[in-house]
Amino acid sequence: MIPNIKIDVSLCHADKIGTDHGYTTNEFKQLSNQIEECHKQILKEREIKKYGFFDLYKDKKTREKIKEVSKQFLNQGIENLVILGIGGSALGITALNTAINGPYYNLLSKEQRKAYPRLFVMDNIDPSTFERILQLCPPEKTLYNAISKSGETAETMCQLLIVLKKLEDSLGPERIKEHLVITTSPKSENAPKSLLHPIAEKYGITQFEIPLNVGGRFSVFSPVGLFPAEMLGFDLEAIAEGCASIDKVCSNPQLDQNPAYLFAGIHYLLDKTKGKKISVMMPYSDRLKDTADWYCQLWAESLGKKDDLNGNEIFNGQTPVKALGATDQHSQIQLYREGPNDKIINMIKVKDFNTSLPVPEMFSEIPELDYIQGQTMNDLIEAEFEGTKDALTISHRPVIVIEIEKISEYTVAQLLYMLEVATATAGKLYNINAFNQPGVDEGKRIARQLMMEKKKRI
Amino acid sequence: MIPNIKIDVSLCHADKIGTDHGYTTNEFKQLSNQIEECHKQILKEREIKKYGFFDLYKDKKTREKIKEVSKQFLNQGIENLVILGIGGSALGITALNTAINGPYYNLLSKEQRKAYPRLFVMDNIDPSTFERILQLCPPEKTLYNAISKSGETAETMCQLLIVLKKLEDSLGPERIKEHLVITTSPKSENAPKSLLHPIAEKYGITQFEIPLNVGGRFSVFSPVGLFPAEMLGFDLEAIAEGCASIDKVCSNPQLDQNPAYLFAGIHYLLDKTKGKKISVMMPYSDRLKDTADWYCQLWAESLGKKDDLNGNEIFNGQTPVKALGATDQHSQIQLYREGPNDKIINMIKVKDFNTSLPVPEMFSEIPELDYIQGQTMNDLIEAEFEGTKDALTISHRPVIVIEIEKISEYTVAQLLYMLEVATATAGKLYNINAFNQPGVDEGKRIARQLMMEKKKRI
Repeated sequence: MIPNIKIDVSLCHADKIGTDHGYTTNEFKQLSNQIEECHKQILKEREIKKYGFFDLYKDKKTREKIKEVSKQFLNQGIENLVILGIGGSALGITALNTAINGPYYNLLSKEQRKAYPRLFVMDNIDPSTFERILQLCPPEKTLYNAISKSGETAETMCQLLIVLKKLEDSLGPERIKEHLVITTSPKSENAPKSLLHPIAEKYGITQFEIPLNVGGRFSVFSPVGLFPAEMLGFDLEAIAEGCASIDKVCSNPQLDQNPAYLFAGIHYLLDKTKGKKISVMMPYSDRLKDTADWYCQLWAESLGKKDDLNGNEIFNGQTPVKALGATDQHSQIQLYREGPNDKIINMIKVKDFNTSLPVPEMFSEIPELDYIQGQTMNDLIEAEFEGTKDALTISHRPVIVIEIEKISEYTVAQLLYMLEVATATAGKLYNINAFNQPGVDEGKRIARQLMMEKKKRI
Repeated sequence: MIPNIKIDVSLCHADKIGTDHGYTTNEFKQLSNQIEECHKQILKEREIKKYGFFDLYKDKKTREKIKEVSKQFLNQGIENLVILGIGGSALGITALNTAINGPYYNLLSKEQRKAYPRLFVMDNIDPSTFERILQLCPPEKTLYNAISKSGETAETMCQLLIVLKKLEDSLGPERIKEHLVITTSPKSENAPKSLLHPIAEKYGITQFEIPLNVGGRFSVFSPVGLFPAEMLGFDLEAIAEGCASIDKVCSNPQLDQNPAYLFAGIHYLLDKTKGKKISVMMPYSDRLKDTADWYCQLWAESLGKKDDLNGNEIFNGQTPVKALGATDQHSQIQLYREGPNDKIINMIKVKDFNTSLPVPEMFSEIPELDYIQGQTMNDLIEAEFEGTKDALTISHRPVIVIEIEKISEYTVAQLLYMLEVATATAGKLYNINAFNQPGVDEGKRIARQLMMEKKKRI
């Protein structure tokens, strides 16, 4: 049995970094009381199923449908899976794929990939990138998955129209359903309509549903993340088990026993009382770098809110920053140690890399290399982790350590789920709505208006 | 002739976003005076060649050597170029490669790559990634380029030892020089020794020199960036011309005529007087996303300094954040518009994407898609850029617009060079040393000590 992920906030204690930057035992006690209140609210909301992300892992029926549909497409010989989606529709599967398959997965041979497809996540509308993807992925061997809850995401719809035309021209309209899957809101009377429904119906395209009570950035364990995950051969049951096991731990009302509450609580406390306006997510593993990216959306879009729930203007929100260890020791650590003490640095440690690379002893004549020779690359990344952690502490910078035994579907699901609960909890602490995003509408409105005006001019 | 890159700071003016967040005409005048002083200091330092990065582009001789050496390796049939380097040794070529070759370059066929090698930049010591790279790159077809000024970078030396052993085992020690190039400090009496010198000499490996007065993060136009660039078929003369042309513009003493001074000056002013502690770099082009990453090192490591030049503790340094348009509109813009008004958002606009993707008119029955159908993906990304820019301005957030006609060696060199001069200038304004990194030593020291202790225990 894989041990659960662990979180250690002790390096944020005032004993370690002083009262200007760290929490005191007394402040922690007060926080415990606040968390108790949040816990009650969350329990109530879970009861009425206000937010669906908590329980997505319990939906075995959807997993069964996903497996069935995936099998058909895999049997059909799909070699490329292309996600058309942006933001919450893209970041979850990107995080999962990088974690499980590792960087450079797309360069592996078909045999090395065990015949699972390459993955392309088209989360932008750069015409030169999109053109290249269309070249790299011949229609016959490609499955597209368009993801948008409302079907109104301009970027995704723009991509989809281009892809539909290409599929229609090369394979004919009746074969589009063999190369396109749509993930959108359910079609039901009390649900808002999705523009993707009429398109799916026109061509008889398979649809997956994003539950109405699940927002984009909380959707990784819905078909948004799980259908592509299954197409890539990931173990959906291990993902569900990871969620279930950490849900249990994150349902503990005790602050010091609950990793999600600890993460949320310490972030909140150090933001509000010690001026820590930036949250750095720094895994020491290439495989978790897109998890850091996923976290940046979750934390920024959920907690970056102008108004609190009482309607007061508070301009809330820590700025999340992704970093990568050991790489960014040579880029960001200078700032993190000597710049303004305005950051919490979340360092993720992976204990077992599934492989060990010995460093040969080649140069007895260069004693300066003694400390590396005869050891392993694993030893070095671990020492770098410890060294940086200690150096940050010496500079009175608050560090939260998240420890993962080894990267797998089970542990990554735990990490993502824990951060989702932490985000929802932080929303309660800040007294804001963590589940909307009113600030993105204005830009969309202006963009749409500019497009309409341009069209009229033509 | 390609027009120079342009910078527009007018959206940071108090007229647009109010005096709490924008600069006033009076403040700009005072800044002009400060910049005049900086300009004089920079002129003096350039005269005595205190910092070498300004003049790297003038070194035609080094470019000639690079071309000669590259030709040999290319004729030898090299299919993979693997950089062993971290921080400043990695970020520059990564930025150049993504800009010129675009994302997914490594997936192109040999013909599509015009027989130039794939590029792998190994800027970390994750054992599972490194193992995969060794598998993907058979020694016979691979050229390694180990880059470290001192030869003391633990990560790079660890990688190098593993690679040397692999090359020795598979090709024999005498053929190592056909598969490894070393870029390090010059070997001369008054230069500090590099641990890479004895290694290069043992195997007769070609060496390129990093001038002593050029630091890692300012080294992209030295052989650190240029040798890999030439191996990838980039036009080194266009890079040099881009540098030369923008050097001219960035040597103008007038604040309002000098893009580097404008960038530095407005960042400094809004940091010091309006609390803008975060600098977001947000290109609307996939090809510039690693340029944003390169900028994050440059800005963070240069300006994140505890002490000013008079020895006062000031804990200086804006936190740079990379973002990507339009993608991060669906991730970060909510925070940028509604969160704390503590950011300057640098938006980079690329006017010509070298291709245009028409959006077909497929669904006359869906009027909600009218604004996209019949236009182009290029129109949409431009409209998104404008919409987001306006929305940020409406929320009183300072935006700097950098405009690039089209991405090429010439324009990217301009952008990087301009940001280097801006960083050096910002160092002057903040009265700090922008060219050292004392804060990274402690972590290195502890890591080394841990490694030594571990070794003793074995």
